[in-house]
Amino acid sequence: MNARNQTKVPEPSLKRLPLYLHLLKKAAKSGVLSISAPLIAKELELDPTQVVKDLSFTGASGRPRIGYRIDELILVIERFLGFDHASEAILLGAGHLGTALMSYPDFEQYGLKIVAAFDSDSSKLGRTSSGINVIHIKKLREIIQRLGVEIAVLTNPGQVAQEISEQLVSCGIRAIWNLTPVKLKLPREVVVQDTSMYANVALLLNKLKHST
Amino acid sequence: MNARNQTKVPEPSLKRLPLYLHLLKKAAKSGVLSISAPLIAKELELDPTQVVKDLSFTGASGRPRIGYRIDELILVIERFLGFDHASEAILLGAGHLGTALMSYPDFEQYGLKIVAAFDSDSSKLGRTSSGINVIHIKKLREIIQRLGVEIAVLTNPGQVAQEISEQLVSCGIRAIWNLTPVKLKLPREVVVQDTSMYANVALLLNKLKHST
Repeated sequence: MNARNQTKVPEPSLKRLPLYLHLLKKAAKSGVLSISAPLIAKELELDPTQVVKDLSFTGASGRPRIGYRIDELILVIERFLGFDHASEAILLGAGHLGTALMSYPDFEQYGLKIVAAFDSDSSKLGRTSSGINVIHIKKLREIIQRLGVEIAVLTNPGQVAQEISEQLVSCGIRAIWNLTPVKLKLPREVVVQDTSMYANVALLLNKLKHST
Repeated sequence: MNARNQTKVPEPSLKRLPLYLHLLKKAAKSGVLSISAPLIAKELELDPTQVVKDLSFTGASGRPRIGYRIDELILVIERFLGFDHASEAILLGAGHLGTALMSYPDFEQYGLKIVAAFDSDSSKLGRTSSGINVIHIKKLREIIQRLGVEIAVLTNPGQVAQEISEQLVSCGIRAIWNLTPVKLKLPREVVVQDTSMYANVALLLNKLKHST
């Protein structure tokens, strides 16, 4: 890892990197070999200076008059984001949202490989159509330790989210993607990424209310 | 709508309001009648001053020594967020994520009522287990105009997202919750709320990489 990778990248920049990746892959598919920052900016309705800055975090730099070589840029961004090798993760809660995430076709491409799922409802156990095994939650510790996974995706009902997240941490999980609407209280060293669907609905409705 | 509602609320505050709501409902269920800002702050690991400020956007104000009356505060936040009456929305794409959203038990409580879904795959048409009708996308215009909906939830594959969003706007849709990884290019007056699952994975992996 070079010094550049150690820089803490601002969250808005990080969130835009998958957008660049998506655009670049689309361009690559249609045969484009290189692309300029202003063109990327135009396509994504961003400021060109911002694009150059975002991309510089990954170590990428364009060349005058040529811009960025698309295949190189894709690799650099993927490596930077950790998308070049999918990290293994377990999923908690094989309900509707959990099942949707297990069936997401591109997740692995975007850095996360769900290797097992857990539920307490025995009617949900067994192999899913996407080939992931849903295991009873009483085997959580055993499986986490056997697989050596460090990442968990939380899609349980909110009422049990705190309890289960504590259990996960005690089994060795270091990072939790929290898709429940609950604020988890965990030791500082545990990485938590919150994605509340409800918070996003709130933002949408509020923006609509204030639009004219 | 009073003057306070017209204030543009900062996005981080807006995102926290559903968290408060969740906590307050839980407290109300267990019989608590009033709650102080410092206690809310402690439960959610926030700064008490921040809590008071966030809640003030909704018009709520606590009383010295008593704090906020929970039932009142719930109503005020719900009304502010538009969660007191669910806005009707249509859903585009009855794939895994779309189906998951249609089956979300609490969406209506959080302000969004999906009244119809659309897909181009005729094997997906018909009524879902959650009672929502999946209709062929060729009937989009007819149904939007008949129902008079203004909000659409986009869960299609990314490749068709731009095309479909343009179609939605031409049919009268004013707000789009975009769950595809694509950046939509639409007229300024259209409200777009992006929730890219992949961007959230990127944030999670990056935080993990920089944690020690």
